[in-house]
Amino acid sequence: MNHPSCLAVVLAAGEGTRMKSDLPKVLHPVGGRPLIDAVLEIARAGGADRLAVVIGADKVRAHLTKTAPDAQVFEQRERLGTAHAALAAREALARHQGPVLILFGDTPLVRPATIAALTGRLSAGADIALLGFTTDAPTGYGRLIIEDGRLVAIVEERDADESTKAIRLCNSGIMAFRPGLLPELLDAIGNANAKGEYYLTDAVALGTARGLRAEAVIGSEESEFVGVNDRAQLAAAEAIFQKRARAEAMAAGATLVAPDTVFFSFDTRLGRDVTVEPNVVFAPGVEVASGVVIRAFSHLEGARVASGAVIGPYARLRPGADLAENVHVGNFVEIKNARVDQGAKVNHLTYIGDASIGARTNVGAGTITCNYDGYFKHRTIIGADVFVGSNTVMVAPVTVGDNALTAAGSVITADVPGDAMAFGRARQDVKEGMGAAKKAALAAKKAAAKSTG
Amino acid sequence: MNHPSCLAVVLAAGEGTRMKSDLPKVLHPVGGRPLIDAVLEIARAGGADRLAVVIGADKVRAHLTKTAPDAQVFEQRERLGTAHAALAAREALARHQGPVLILFGDTPLVRPATIAALTGRLSAGADIALLGFTTDAPTGYGRLIIEDGRLVAIVEERDADESTKAIRLCNSGIMAFRPGLLPELLDAIGNANAKGEYYLTDAVALGTARGLRAEAVIGSEESEFVGVNDRAQLAAAEAIFQKRARAEAMAAGATLVAPDTVFFSFDTRLGRDVTVEPNVVFAPGVEVASGVVIRAFSHLEGARVASGAVIGPYARLRPGADLAENVHVGNFVEIKNARVDQGAKVNHLTYIGDASIGARTNVGAGTITCNYDGYFKHRTIIGADVFVGSNTVMVAPVTVGDNALTAAGSVITADVPGDAMAFGRARQDVKEGMGAAKKAALAAKKAAAKSTG
Amino acid sequence: MNHPSCLAVVLAAGEGTRMKSDLPKVLHPVGGRPLIDAVLEIARAGGADRLAVVIGADKVRAHLTKTAPDAQVFEQRERLGTAHAALAAREALARHQGPVLILFGDTPLVRPATIAALTGRLSAGADIALLGFTTDAPTGYGRLIIEDGRLVAIVEERDADESTKAIRLCNSGIMAFRPGLLPELLDAIGNANAKGEYYLTDAVALGTARGLRAEAVIGSEESEFVGVNDRAQLAAAEAIFQKRARAEAMAAGATLVAPDTVFFSFDTRLGRDVTVEPNVVFAPGVEVASGVVIRAFSHLEGARVASGAVIGPYARLRPGADLAENVHVGNFVEIKNARVDQGAKVNHLTYIGDASIGARTNVGAGTITCNYDGYFKHRTIIGADVFVGSNTVMVAPVTVGDNALTAAGSVITADVPGDAMAFGRARQDVKEGMGAAKKAALAAKKAAAKSTG
Repeated sequence: MNHPSCLAVVLAAGEGTRMKSDLPKVLHPVGGRPLIDAVLEIARAGGADRLAVVIGADKVRAHLTKTAPDAQVFEQRERLGTAHAALAAREALARHQGPVLILFGDTPLVRPATIAALTGRLSAGADIALLGFTTDAPTGYGRLIIEDGRLVAIVEERDADESTKAIRLCNSGIMAFRPGLLPELLDAIGNANAKGEYYLTDAVALGTARGLRAEAVIGSEESEFVGVNDRAQLAAAEAIFQKRARAEAMAAGATLVAPDTVFFSFDTRLGRDVTVEPNVVFAPGVEVASGVVIRAFSHLEGARVASGAVIGPYARLRPGADLAENVHVGNFVEIKNARVDQGAKVNHLTYIGDASIGARTNVGAGTITCNYDGYFKHRTIIGADVFVGSNTVMVAPVTVGDNALTAAGSVITADVPGDAMAFGRARQDVKEGMGAAKKAALAAKKAAAKSTG
Repeated sequence: MNHPSCLAVVLAAGEGTRMKSDLPKVLHPVGGRPLIDAVLEIARAGGADRLAVVIGADKVRAHLTKTAPDAQVFEQRERLGTAHAALAAREALARHQGPVLILFGDTPLVRPATIAALTGRLSAGADIALLGFTTDAPTGYGRLIIEDGRLVAIVEERDADESTKAIRLCNSGIMAFRPGLLPELLDAIGNANAKGEYYLTDAVALGTARGLRAEAVIGSEESEFVGVNDRAQLAAAEAIFQKRARAEAMAAGATLVAPDTVFFSFDTRLGRDVTVEPNVVFAPGVEVASGVVIRAFSHLEGARVASGAVIGPYARLRPGADLAENVHVGNFVEIKNARVDQGAKVNHLTYIGDASIGARTNVGAGTITCNYDGYFKHRTIIGADVFVGSNTVMVAPVTVGDNALTAAGSVITADVPGDAMAFGRARQDVKEGMGAAKKAALAAKKAAAKSTG
Repeated sequence: MNHPSCLAVVLAAGEGTRMKSDLPKVLHPVGGRPLIDAVLEIARAGGADRLAVVIGADKVRAHLTKTAPDAQVFEQRERLGTAHAALAAREALARHQGPVLILFGDTPLVRPATIAALTGRLSAGADIALLGFTTDAPTGYGRLIIEDGRLVAIVEERDADESTKAIRLCNSGIMAFRPGLLPELLDAIGNANAKGEYYLTDAVALGTARGLRAEAVIGSEESEFVGVNDRAQLAAAEAIFQKRARAEAMAAGATLVAPDTVFFSFDTRLGRDVTVEPNVVFAPGVEVASGVVIRAFSHLEGARVASGAVIGPYARLRPGADLAENVHVGNFVEIKNARVDQGAKVNHLTYIGDASIGARTNVGAGTITCNYDGYFKHRTIIGADVFVGSNTVMVAPVTVGDNALTAAGSVITADVPGDAMAFGRARQDVKEGMGAAKKAALAAKKAAAKSTG
């Protein structure tokens, strides 16, 4: 390929003090994924094949080791502005020969296509491309001055006269530079300003002064450029993410009865003709096939649901839940790390963990797999066409063969062969009159307590 | 009566491809009821006593056989426009001697009073009455030209000049025709237009040219005319339905702590001084008497709740749940097809199905009625003033008499007489030191596994 | 102190017929607390140290006896206007020598700082201070006429000309009077108006005519002045309360993933770095320490949660739940009146009531404390490092010693010493082939029933 490698430098060293958190800002999640991961994904999907991240906290480095081992990580020790931050990645810039993209770790909603459009300006002849957006509330942002298709200046709020303040086209800070250009511009940027900081935005004025061509790309939606600096902005970013995810799910043929009450994660996948009732949460890692009905108040995480299944209301699918076609999971049921085969039903007040359940098996209300002994987890294997009586306890490891029955209220501690019936409960005994007598005694005691008390 | 019979022709043959669904569009629900059912109810409540439905999918015919057996169903095989669709009902039109109303199967929110106002124009002298609405976003709609109280023209978007485009009064498509008029107009409508289709709207121009009087009735709310063509519009229609239902419930004297989180069905009935906490879903068939408190996260369907009851949080009432005065149903409790008498309490983690529970009876936490043997459902009959111990399993069919007790943890497989106490559990046995020994053994095994692994 | 005592007279006698309720209007709650309690708290926090409440319903008197025993309560028998209502408190006014504040029992959202600003005008020289607000929908309100910093008139809607109707500055009715002034003004107010009522607002005109100085204080937010007259307004007031509470929680460093789905009470306290997932309800009396995660669909009331705990999803904490550091409470678990010590886990389908659970103890799925015998509540004491097997029933009163085990499915009716293992379940018995035989018999019976039926 002759497409030059593109390096994204993600500035993620901001302290985020307004978050009032012990967690670094860029590790706070949107759509079930830390901001920094979202931004790296944007960079990749937008065309960057090399990643450099400038961090300020060790927790971010530790996190990236796991989620983005391919990214080079640099530390910015002092906070002296965006150009200073970019310089922290000097080593990556020096070795890189393609275009360079500057992104921000706290701006997680930019669409990859917008990024691609930005780097596309470089291919079309721009030396510097900057991402702008239009807003009805421009106060505080640098305003973009465009003349004849060129970005000729960025005027900061404090330097803007009234007519400039009326400009609604603002600077997002996101920029792209043609190969080789950024290092020399970074070296030239000074700090002769009120705060004594080095601003990457000054690269535009510097470049223009040198006769370079700067252009602006205007994002189609203001919401792409929401930055996260406090918890309210985090919630606002989450709301934008959710709005997009809901619209996409509906466009793909899912019914969301009350879209505002359904919460998606970044990787949720819903098939066609899925119906989602009000108040459903999709935590990360969920894949739902076509024709599934997810009833109200359900919570799914790390789960796969095959077509025709009915889930909920009040069903909780935890990581490793793998439900085959036409499975029914009902109310107050928790399923974790378990395969449930075609047409099986687990309808009421049940905990299934570390288990497999065969096709067409019916699991009675109140069934519990006792999968943990305090030290080890054990598996429960239930065959096909089994009828598990209500309130059965399966003490794992245990296996129940195909077509077996367990009597209601049994504790199953040993394997049950196929076709067998297992009992593990006491025989009923009735004491005539004893209920009335006991109640009378308690009532008398209560009356006595009241008269004394 | 000398009020002439009114025929509503409901056009419901649209393919709804933008829904991306295997279900015909008009079978998708709003307010817990398919669109087509909602429209037929509007027609009836608006004064139509004869119904004709023009369909395009067999599933709709099958559905109507059940929900509207009185409606005549006609099939439109080709999709050649609204006039062509109406002609599919030619047989019904030919036999009908009263006024005719044209409605659309995907427009489920028109108020019956608006329909009545429309046919009312016929009684007042109009030959053709058309329903219009005012909107700030008229682009795409035909604009209504009114002169001296007469509808003189409908100008389609493509034919509109700038001043016409500025008109905010638009055509909903819903029309009424004086007796006998529609068939001859339908025969006269041509297809000399860009798409080669037959448009019912052309009836206005045709009629006016013949000297007939056309009038427009203007609906009071734009939201009445929301049509459903994709999932986002379906969600929008649902939102309008819910907003209306919430407002009506509050106007009638119910407290909705957070109205936006309460979901009603078309037939939900709430009494005065009912309190509904956040996040409650009323599926179809629910009737709640005065003074009931429905706590957060509850889900009710096909259930009756008498006055003074307290439901939830996290209570699920399923079809056939019939709760008498002052009953308490608590968290993680499911009740299905069961009568619960005055003052009885079912407060925690319980499944009651196919049962009756007597007055003042207390059902302990974790109680399960074992109502299904895999083939048949059986009933559990519990008398009045019974104390059902925690974690009791009732293996139906079984009857527990008045004033009886069951010991906690019992499996009840045989009837318990009144006043008796039933036991069905093992005696406790304690092995001194065995807990510590077992834990030590497991801990050692775990340590060994770690050092090996 | 030479700060004069301030008397707040709260007018709370309105019948509230538009509420359509058997409960007096001011006893309906906002933020989990009756309107009247909220207003009295505003009065206190705004600087009033004496309280007089003018009521119209005995239920309000009974309520105030409990929640505000320091308030003097007066009854207004007839409803003849606000001045007439204030006169009902004549006895309190006569004995009071400091400034007087007039508040309304159905206006629960005024900020205490706004009240303090109002009485501050008296200290700064005003004789009468009136609270106004700015709105884009002023129709129906009295308009404030301000000249040279003085409130010179209040013009009622019916008396307003077009230019006055355009005024957006309106009268809230809330007023403050310098010491000694109100009684004489009240005596002078007449009822020569359309309704024949006595309006407190007339005090401004009367005072101005006498050369007194009246001033207006303008509230910063229109939402402070929302009054509650029907259920829709009650819901609107609740929505404003919730919006404030959510913003405050986020500003203090809590993450609300979906703020609109989290419901607070007036006294909810959340620490820093608390994460609240969607759909969580905080009923009154909840205190959550830093670093706690509250997962979706949880409901907390009267509960304390120490740092590091993880709650939910679907956890219900009821009054008296007291969770120590790093406790885990999982799905479909109810905890009431129970202490749970450091690091203990209660993860699935469990009811813990009237109990204490020691540190690091693991409570298995389906565990039930049987705390109620129909007459008395008894306690369950579980020690530290205990492993409670799944589906254990603890029949209280019962004590389980440290480091003990209970076998899954046991009913524990007697104390278990430390280090012991307790069994209380039947031995398992397997009947080969009996499952298949029973199923075959049922299937045959079902087939027979079908062919007969």
